[in-house]
Amino acid sequence: MTVHQQAAEARVAAIELAAATRAEKDAALLLMAERLVERTDDIVAANAVDTGNARDGGQPESMIDRLTLTPERVAAMADGLRQLAALPDPVGDVVRGSTLANGLELRQVRVPFGVVGIVYEGRPNVTADAAGICLKSGNAALLRGSGSAMSSNAAIVSVLRKAIADSGLPANAVQLLDASTRDSVKELMRARGLVDVLIPRGGASLIKTVVEESTVPVIETGVGNCHVYVDEAADLEKALGVVLNSKTQRLSTCNTAESLLVHSALSESFLPLVIEELINAGVTIHGDPRAAAFDGVVPATAEDWGKEYLSADISLAVVDSLDDALDHIRRFGTGHTEAIVSESTTAVRRFAARVDAAAVMINASTRFTDGGEFGFGAEIGISTQKLHARGPMGLPELTSTKYIVTGNGHTR
Amino acid sequence: MTVHQQAAEARVAAIELAAATRAEKDAALLLMAERLVERTDDIVAANAVDTGNARDGGQPESMIDRLTLTPERVAAMADGLRQLAALPDPVGDVVRGSTLANGLELRQVRVPFGVVGIVYEGRPNVTADAAGICLKSGNAALLRGSGSAMSSNAAIVSVLRKAIADSGLPANAVQLLDASTRDSVKELMRARGLVDVLIPRGGASLIKTVVEESTVPVIETGVGNCHVYVDEAADLEKALGVVLNSKTQRLSTCNTAESLLVHSALSESFLPLVIEELINAGVTIHGDPRAAAFDGVVPATAEDWGKEYLSADISLAVVDSLDDALDHIRRFGTGHTEAIVSESTTAVRRFAARVDAAAVMINASTRFTDGGEFGFGAEIGISTQKLHARGPMGLPELTSTKYIVTGNGHTR
Repeated sequence: MTVHQQAAEARVAAIELAAATRAEKDAALLLMAERLVERTDDIVAANAVDTGNARDGGQPESMIDRLTLTPERVAAMADGLRQLAALPDPVGDVVRGSTLANGLELRQVRVPFGVVGIVYEGRPNVTADAAGICLKSGNAALLRGSGSAMSSNAAIVSVLRKAIADSGLPANAVQLLDASTRDSVKELMRARGLVDVLIPRGGASLIKTVVEESTVPVIETGVGNCHVYVDEAADLEKALGVVLNSKTQRLSTCNTAESLLVHSALSESFLPLVIEELINAGVTIHGDPRAAAFDGVVPATAEDWGKEYLSADISLAVVDSLDDALDHIRRFGTGHTEAIVSESTTAVRRFAARVDAAAVMINASTRFTDGGEFGFGAEIGISTQKLHARGPMGLPELTSTKYIVTGNGHTR
Repeated sequence: MTVHQQAAEARVAAIELAAATRAEKDAALLLMAERLVERTDDIVAANAVDTGNARDGGQPESMIDRLTLTPERVAAMADGLRQLAALPDPVGDVVRGSTLANGLELRQVRVPFGVVGIVYEGRPNVTADAAGICLKSGNAALLRGSGSAMSSNAAIVSVLRKAIADSGLPANAVQLLDASTRDSVKELMRARGLVDVLIPRGGASLIKTVVEESTVPVIETGVGNCHVYVDEAADLEKALGVVLNSKTQRLSTCNTAESLLVHSALSESFLPLVIEELINAGVTIHGDPRAAAFDGVVPATAEDWGKEYLSADISLAVVDSLDDALDHIRRFGTGHTEAIVSESTTAVRRFAARVDAAAVMINASTRFTDGGEFGFGAEIGISTQKLHARGPMGLPELTSTKYIVTGNGHTR
């Protein structure tokens, strides 16, 4: 079946799904969870095919670990679906409402997008997560996972589709696209009119391709060249904690800090301290000339400032003012998360107003930019674009709105 | 100057504008209004160049009328700016806020997009409107008007820029792009990273080009193939009023009805009546076989069902059920405005839930889909896409959001 045919079937399913009640959707999610657990052996067996192929292909152990499904990981996928069932349904929420002077009743209500395409890499647990989030928000999902997880994804989607059908909703609400060829991504990107939104989740090159070539509207997710700026008025203890946590709490996430900016007034007090602690934590520091004067700091190249390392590396620049820090961030930031550490309300206010990013952290780690941390309960990704959704995207971000205007024969 | 250079200057201006207070922006809007009135003679003289060229080019009188600026029309432009000053500022609105379990304070606040590109046709008054709406919402505007209004637009923008600068805001907040060549539109569409959003306002072909070729995110506006469905449970008097008003109150707008669907149960009661009244109102009816059996109804071709006539024409189909009407709308609608006339709460509920459009009118004219009618005070266009904004776009729709998270040295 072509992507176009699958998308056409998704559209039909989306009509039913948009009209489904919360009770119907939650029942489907709970059955999906139950079936995943029941069919754990089949899923793990299918996963063994993928991990076997990865091993034969000489993939690194870290990649194979990410790909591996154990009974515990299948149970965690099921738990994720149960948690979704417990979340409020965004569909039907009245966003705005009023009665106009002429008596017309105006309501702006949340409605599903319709058909959502998701292109993702790596871990097969994303398949269940994405299917569940789309279903809860009333959207049909077209899932294009990684070629390396083909067998696992096929097994998971087969279980989910059966559960959805058995609960009385259309099985075509969740469909897996062919991951053996890039053509399926291309077809998906050109399916304007059938697919309402496309969400690429993955590396910078995937996101760039989708953004440039898609005629379907795209929600761009997550390249994060996140900065921590330590202001001259910073509490140095808080600063040290925030810098280390932002960089080292987890290295490979988009909300990990990749660049540190330190006010030059702190060149003797804070700078040697933070350099020492970062090096002790195993981080390689790529410093500008003022930072590279310290032992153990590697001189930064021009490329370092724009890099999302996703590793135990950080770039470090000494800046002479808050505005210099803002200029630097404006030039090299990716609009994800920018942090300031300062006790000065004036500095904090100026930074928060002028930095152009999805999230601004004031005296807090960049690692907090996360749907779970924000209390959204579920997250489909972190948008770094300004249109529609910015920052962690929960269920409401997977909806559009519709104006419903009720009159009694009203005319103009 | 190239579009790229202009966009780069707009970005710089946008930083200042984003931080401007409501008082500063309103003062600028009032000065812009005052100066437009003071410089009426210059503007009207510049406009005479455009209308002269249009006349020499053999343009129809209706086009020349739309192009013409009189002192009254300049005064109306100024009034529009004054009305904008009176509207609340969307920037800084807290959309969502909470204190997390760990004490972090989370606020999602409205912020300007940054730089907004607007490509529009026809009337030069759009220039002042668009500049004002962007300025009030804290965005720098890159305006690419019609070649036919070049001289008028240049005069208007020159006055506005001077007023903005004199009020202390950056003049580059409003810039006019070269309208003598299509290249400026192309450059604008490729200025990703400099331009945050592109809004095409104009005919279907302009919108299609921009949607397909732009790498800058687009908000699609307004092709409207709007339907009125008259249900078997309709009040016939209300139905007649709604149909006639939707079609004939103004012919050339995107919220004008272009297609009428009548339930077959009304073939003898309502159908002859509405046909007669439409013909009396000078409307040409393009009917399906059952409708074309009536005197004066022209048989519809396959193309008629998808047409946005923008003229005294309407297509007319007889349908056997509400679901047939929904199928027809799903096939031919453009997601703008769809109306139902019915006294049945069940029918109304099903129609409102299942029709996929920016606005659903229940016993009301399609002509109500309008920012002014909805009480938004200002409108930059009517979005027919589902991402970000759907339906009439007021000031809040010209903003994005930013999460501001305040801690006290919080780490994960």
